[in-house]
Amino acid sequence: MMSAMSKYDVLVVGAGVLGLSTAYHIKRENPERSILVLDKLGGPGQGNSAKSVGAFRNVFSSRTNFLLADSTIDFFTHVQEDLGHDLGLVFHGYLWLLSGRQYRRQEENFKEMSRRGVELRTWEREDLRRMIPDLVTEFEEGDEEAEVMGLEPVERGLQGVKCGSIDADRLVRFYEEEFRRLGGEVRYNVEVKRLILKPERELGLPGEPFVWQDASVKGVETVRGEEIYADRVVVAVGAWANTLLNPIGLDAFMRPKKRQVFVFKDERLERLFHSEGFNKEGVVPLLILPKAGILIKPEVSEGALWIECADNLGRPFKLEDDPQPELTYYTGNLYHVVVKYLPCFRDVQPVNMWAGQYALNSIDKTPYVFEEAGMIYVGAGSGSGLMKCDALGRIAAALYAGEKEATLYGGRAFRVSDLSVKERRVERETFVL
Amino acid sequence: MMSAMSKYDVLVVGAGVLGLSTAYHIKRENPERSILVLDKLGGPGQGNSAKSVGAFRNVFSSRTNFLLADSTIDFFTHVQEDLGHDLGLVFHGYLWLLSGRQYRRQEENFKEMSRRGVELRTWEREDLRRMIPDLVTEFEEGDEEAEVMGLEPVERGLQGVKCGSIDADRLVRFYEEEFRRLGGEVRYNVEVKRLILKPERELGLPGEPFVWQDASVKGVETVRGEEIYADRVVVAVGAWANTLLNPIGLDAFMRPKKRQVFVFKDERLERLFHSEGFNKEGVVPLLILPKAGILIKPEVSEGALWIECADNLGRPFKLEDDPQPELTYYTGNLYHVVVKYLPCFRDVQPVNMWAGQYALNSIDKTPYVFEEAGMIYVGAGSGSGLMKCDALGRIAAALYAGEKEATLYGGRAFRVSDLSVKERRVERETFVL
Repeated sequence: MMSAMSKYDVLVVGAGVLGLSTAYHIKRENPERSILVLDKLGGPGQGNSAKSVGAFRNVFSSRTNFLLADSTIDFFTHVQEDLGHDLGLVFHGYLWLLSGRQYRRQEENFKEMSRRGVELRTWEREDLRRMIPDLVTEFEEGDEEAEVMGLEPVERGLQGVKCGSIDADRLVRFYEEEFRRLGGEVRYNVEVKRLILKPERELGLPGEPFVWQDASVKGVETVRGEEIYADRVVVAVGAWANTLLNPIGLDAFMRPKKRQVFVFKDERLERLFHSEGFNKEGVVPLLILPKAGILIKPEVSEGALWIECADNLGRPFKLEDDPQPELTYYTGNLYHVVVKYLPCFRDVQPVNMWAGQYALNSIDKTPYVFEEAGMIYVGAGSGSGLMKCDALGRIAAALYAGEKEATLYGGRAFRVSDLSVKERRVERETFVL
Repeated sequence: MMSAMSKYDVLVVGAGVLGLSTAYHIKRENPERSILVLDKLGGPGQGNSAKSVGAFRNVFSSRTNFLLADSTIDFFTHVQEDLGHDLGLVFHGYLWLLSGRQYRRQEENFKEMSRRGVELRTWEREDLRRMIPDLVTEFEEGDEEAEVMGLEPVERGLQGVKCGSIDADRLVRFYEEEFRRLGGEVRYNVEVKRLILKPERELGLPGEPFVWQDASVKGVETVRGEEIYADRVVVAVGAWANTLLNPIGLDAFMRPKKRQVFVFKDERLERLFHSEGFNKEGVVPLLILPKAGILIKPEVSEGALWIECADNLGRPFKLEDDPQPELTYYTGNLYHVVVKYLPCFRDVQPVNMWAGQYALNSIDKTPYVFEEAGMIYVGAGSGSGLMKCDALGRIAAALYAGEKEATLYGGRAFRVSDLSVKERRVERETFVL
C-alpha cells in the first residue's frame, strides 16, 4: 500500500478521537471495506485529543449536546465494564459553584435537564462549606479584591452525577486497536498537504475542475507528494480543518481556540481528596468556579488537581501547531480567582502544564457532521469532542452509509441531518457559565 | 482631532457601503453625536464596494433577504427620484435562464416570492428566442461539448423586474456626503491595526483585561500608533473583518471569496443592446446562465457587457488585499460556457477586468448585525451587501440606539435581533442556482 498512488474505499484524515471513532464505526458496519486512517503525528490522539482535560459530562441545555454526550458516556461505561478495557473512568461528578444570580438564570435549564433524565443534585451553601472546608463561599464585607474582581459569593452548588474523568489516551487506543482488529489500516507521520478535488468526468486537461464540471474530493496529497485516493474522504482534523477545507472553497465553520491545563500536586491541596458525599471516591468533584469558566479537576490516579481554562474574549483565535502553556497566564491571571475561592492554592506552583487547541463553532457551539463535495466532515465545534466522540462517529458512519438516522449507543435514534449545514436542527447551547 | 488620542461618540471602521450607510443612519438619528469613519484606503467605497458588479435585485427566497434588498432598492429610487442624486439606476431587470429541471426545483420559491409581492415574469423558450436572437436555448443532437460540459437547454426565463444596476461609486459618495453634511467626520488612509479591548473598570495594571474583568471594545489603534477611542465602535470592513475580530477572540462568521468582472465592448455584442420587451431601455436584462452562476450585465451607460463570476467549489477562501483578475479564468474557463449560450461572445476579448472579494457567510448566506463586547458588527455575508446596504445601516443604527425594531425605508419593521448570533432568526437562502 506504499505505492505512489493507492486507493481505498474510505480515507479518514485525522487519528484523533473523532477520526478514530468514525473509522471504527464505519469499519464495524462495513467490515469488507478498506479503510485507511492518516495522521501527521506519531500516534493516536497525539494532537489535541491528548491535550484536553479528559473530562466528560451529560449536563447540557441543548438536547442535541445531551444526546451526543449521554450516549457516549454510556458507551465509555460499556467499554470499561462489559468489554474490560480500562479507560480510567472515574465518575467524580461536576460541581458548578454558582452565585444566586447564576443559579436563577440557569434554573429553567436545570428543570428541563432533570425532566430529560439528567441526574442533578443541588447543594446549599452550608452543605458546600461542610463538604469542601477549603472553599470560600462568601467574601468579607470590605474585601476590596473580591469587589474589584467582581467575584460573587457561592450560593449553591449544582452537581452533575453522570460526569467525570476519562483517560483520553486509553480511549483513542481502544478505538485504534478495535479498528485495526477489524482490518483497518492506520499510518502515522503522514501529513496531508491538500485535498484532491477532481471532476466527476475527468478530461485530463490542465485547469480541471472547470466551473462547468461537477467535482468532488477524491483523495489527498501528502506533504511528501504521495497521492492517496478513496471513494470517500472523511476529514476529522479538529482545529486544523480549515487548513484543508478553505483551499478548495469549503468552510468548517469554526475557529481554533487555545486552552491550557496546569497540574498541581501538593500536600496543601490534600484535603480536596477527602471530601465525602459527592461520589464514592470521596474526592471533590470537578469544580467550575463562578468566574471566568475556570475548571479544577481531581485527577484521582495521580492525586493531582488540574486547572483548566479555555481562551475567551481578549484571547486570539489563532491556529498553532504546537501551542505553548503560559505560566504567567496562570500566575498573573487565573491564580487570583482560584485563591479567592480556594485559598489552599495560595503559593502552590504547578508541577506540569500544557496547552492544546479546540475547534470552536462560536455560532451554536454544537458539532457539525456533513457531506459536501463528496467529503464527510466531522467536527465537534464545542470544546467537548472527547465526550461526544462515540455518538459523532456513529452519525458520521450513518452519513457514510446514506442512512437518515443513526442509532446511538443504547439505542436512541438521531437524525443525521440535524448536524448538517443545510438542514441543521440544533438548539444553541445556553448552559454556558 | 489629530491628537495622539482622540475620543468620539461613535467610531465606524470601514468607509465601504455598509460602513457609510451605518454612519449616516446613526448620525441622522443622533445629529448631536460625534461620529468618525475611518478607512485604510483613499476614498469612500474603494475596497470591495467599488469592485462589485453594481447590480441589485429583490428576488430572494429568504424573507429576510427580500426585506433587506427590497427596502434598500426603494431607498435607491427615493434618493434618485425624490432627492435628485443621480445614482445611475437602471431597472433593466434580471433574467434567470433556466433549464426545465432548475425551473421545477425553484417553482415553489417563485410562487412564494410572487405571493410576497416580488414582480416576476416568466418567459417561454420561444419568447426568449425572439427577444434575444443571440441566445442558444437548445443544443443540437450530438453536441459533444454541451454534453461533456453538462449544459442543459434553456426552457424558461424568469425575469425579476425590480432589479437592475446602480453606480456603486455614486452610492457611497451619496452616503458620505450626507453624513458629512450632518457633521460627520471621515478620515481616509488611516489603517486600523487592532481593536482596543479594555476592562470596564481599568486598574492600570499590565496584562489587562484579566479573565475576571468584564471587557469591551473601547477604540482602535492605527498602524501609525494613533489611538482613537469611542463610546461605541462599529466594524464594517467586509472581507477584512476577521483580521480585526479574531485577535480579540471574536468571530465574523464569514470567509473571503473572490469574484471577478470582465468587461466587453464589441460590435459583435451590439444586438444585446437592442432587445425589446424586457425593459424600457430596450436592452437585454442581466442574464444568469444556467451553468456555474455566470452573470452577464448590460452596463447601459458604457454600452458594455460585464461578465461576473464568484468563486465556488475548488477556488480558495483566501483574504487578499489586492485580488487580481485572472484572464485565463475567463478564457480557459467561463468562456466555454458563455459562448455555448451566447456565441456572439466568440473570440471577443475583454477590454477591462478587475477582481474583488466579498465576505461569505456560507451557513445561511444572510447578513450579521450584532453587538458583542460592546462592538457593533455589520456584515452582509452574502455577496450582496450593496443591495442591502440601506436596510443594514438602519438595523445597525437601531441596535446602536438599543431599539428592538428597526424601521426600514418605506416603513416596514424589522426585528433587530433577527440578524444577531444569539437570537438569530433567518431563513436559509435557497434561491441559489
